[in-house]
Amino acid sequence: MHPIYVVLCRSMLALSLGGNMSTPPIFILVIYDISDDSRRNEMAVALKRLGLTRVQRSAFIGPSSSALVSDVKNVSRRIIDLETDNVQIYPLTQASYNMRIVIGRELFRDDAAAGGYLV
Amino acid sequence: MHPIYVVLCRSMLALSLGGNMSTPPIFILVIYDISDDSRRNEMAVALKRLGLTRVQRSAFIGPSSSALVSDVKNVSRRIIDLETDNVQIYPLTQASYNMRIVIGRELFRDDAAAGGYLV
Repeated sequence: MHPIYVVLCRSMLALSLGGNMSTPPIFILVIYDISDDSRRNEMAVALKRLGLTRVQRSAFIGPSSSALVSDVKNVSRRIIDLETDNVQIYPLTQASYNMRIVIGRELFRDDAAAGGYLV
Repeated sequence: MHPIYVVLCRSMLALSLGGNMSTPPIFILVIYDISDDSRRNEMAVALKRLGLTRVQRSAFIGPSSSALVSDVKNVSRRIIDLETDNVQIYPLTQASYNMRIVIGRELFRDDAAAGGYLV
C-alpha cells in the first residue's frame, strides 16, 4: 500500500471519529401515517401551507427551523387522531439529503434534481 | 496493513467523496409510496425479511450498510412499478435519529423507546 494512501486514510479516520459531531440539520423530513382520507388530505394541505415540499404522497421536506418544527407539531396535533395516526419528523443534514436515493417516479422531479440521485 | 483496515479506509473514502458526511450515518430510513395493495404488502414483507423495523405502515428503519442499501434497491426495483411507485432511502446519523419527533401512535412503541420522543 502506498504511504500517501495510508496517511490519507488516517486523517480521514481522525476526521470521522473526532470531527464535527454536531453538523446542524438543514432540512426536516415529515412522514405521516393517517388512515382517514379527509384527515390525510387536511394534513397535506397544512404542510403545503407551511411551505414544505411534497416528495411522496405522505412525505414532505422543508427547511429546518425550530419555528417550522413547532408549526408541524401544532398542525399534527390539531389534525390527526392521536390514537390511530402517526407523524414523524426527522432532521436531515445536507449530507444526508445529498445521499438520499430515489427509486421510481418521484412526485416532483424538479425538486429531486436538487439532491440525491434516481436509480 | 491489515485487510480490514484497508476496507474501512475504502468505505470511508467512498463516504467522504460521495456524501461528505463528517458524521457517518448509522441508520437508513426507507419510505415508500406504492399505490397497489399487493405490491405494497410485498414491499413490507421484503423489508422485514431484510431485518428492517417498521415505524409506520410505509416506513422502515434499519442499520446503515452499503450491503443493506443495495438489497433495498434490488427488492424495490423488483417489486415496484417504476412508472407509478416510489421508494426513498435516507441515511440518518445517530444525532438525526435521536432528534426525531413522533406524534401520535407509533406502530412499535418498544422500538420508539430506543430514540426520539413522543409528544
